[in-house]
Amino acid sequence: MRVILASKSPRRKELLSMITTDFEVIVSASDENVQEDLKPSEKVVEIAKQKAQDIFASQEGDVVVLGSDTIVVADNDEILGKPKDYDDAVRMLTTLSNKTHKVMTGVSIIYRKDGKVEESNFCDIADVHVKEISKEEIDKWLETGNAWDKAGAYAIQQEFAVHIDKLDGNYATVMGLPIHAVYDEFKRLKII
Amino acid sequence: MRVILASKSPRRKELLSMITTDFEVIVSASDENVQEDLKPSEKVVEIAKQKAQDIFASQEGDVVVLGSDTIVVADNDEILGKPKDYDDAVRMLTTLSNKTHKVMTGVSIIYRKDGKVEESNFCDIADVHVKEISKEEIDKWLETGNAWDKAGAYAIQQEFAVHIDKLDGNYATVMGLPIHAVYDEFKRLKII
Repeated sequence: MRVILASKSPRRKELLSMITTDFEVIVSASDENVQEDLKPSEKVVEIAKQKAQDIFASQEGDVVVLGSDTIVVADNDEILGKPKDYDDAVRMLTTLSNKTHKVMTGVSIIYRKDGKVEESNFCDIADVHVKEISKEEIDKWLETGNAWDKAGAYAIQQEFAVHIDKLDGNYATVMGLPIHAVYDEFKRLKII
Repeated sequence: MRVILASKSPRRKELLSMITTDFEVIVSASDENVQEDLKPSEKVVEIAKQKAQDIFASQEGDVVVLGSDTIVVADNDEILGKPKDYDDAVRMLTTLSNKTHKVMTGVSIIYRKDGKVEESNFCDIADVHVKEISKEEIDKWLETGNAWDKAGAYAIQQEFAVHIDKLDGNYATVMGLPIHAVYDEFKRLKII
């Protein structure tokens, strides 16, 4: 069975490697386009679906395509995507300081075997608490250059980890792919 | 300020690198020796203290020594250390299957500056839930060879991650060093 990861995120690649090392990475060039009135957890699944469907449509034969998207939802319900610039990153991290926020990762698995298509879409949510962080600590983190392609301007698995004291949920979900749930779906679909 | 990590664990080395890359690793050759009647959370701090004290005693001048130890406590209160052999690992993982267990990491920081000695000892605890795992899945994990130097015969950051659906606490604590708390102590002691 061909497995395609429809994401260029190195974290997702690393996480999927825990299940199988035999997969291709093909990334959609299409723009994401979601209805504005969806709830955050619906939005993130919709984007994951679009990423997966776009690649799936161009593939023939037996194949499974995995799409995923991650957002950070601050305690004021603001959705934090990737920061636009330095000031935007400072603003996001200041919003997260001394509070609990949600990380939502949407997953879409589309699967074709012997002409039969099956689809599984879901969202996994984790609560993350960030300690109080100073402007100096924010600057120090941003100087690492690791914040720019991350929702909420941070990565739980890098130097920013010293500012996170508590996680309630799945760590891989915060990294960008709930690998425990993908594993269960792959087992159910007999992909692994 | 010289920083010494009194542990040979590559995970602790990786985690401490998030705070500073300027540290030495010196490991105690002494055997651990703790009272049997201590609670698990006291035991793990006592072992961390012995590791740190043993190295600290042989150092002169301004220095900070960091000792740490990690245990897994199953829901029947059994303490799981490193597995003795294959059967022991299978037994441990079977005990953890479909249950929540505690991971306790004890930390001891001993610090000397201008002749003044300060010591900070604490334990950080995380709850980890392991999904139901089959004997086949246990065998597959053990085949990776990554289980042998780990308390409870698993590593949260490796292939075993697919079997863990939920963490309540700090991820780094489960890996072996609550880096968020070490960071706070290092800040308080003005080491960083």
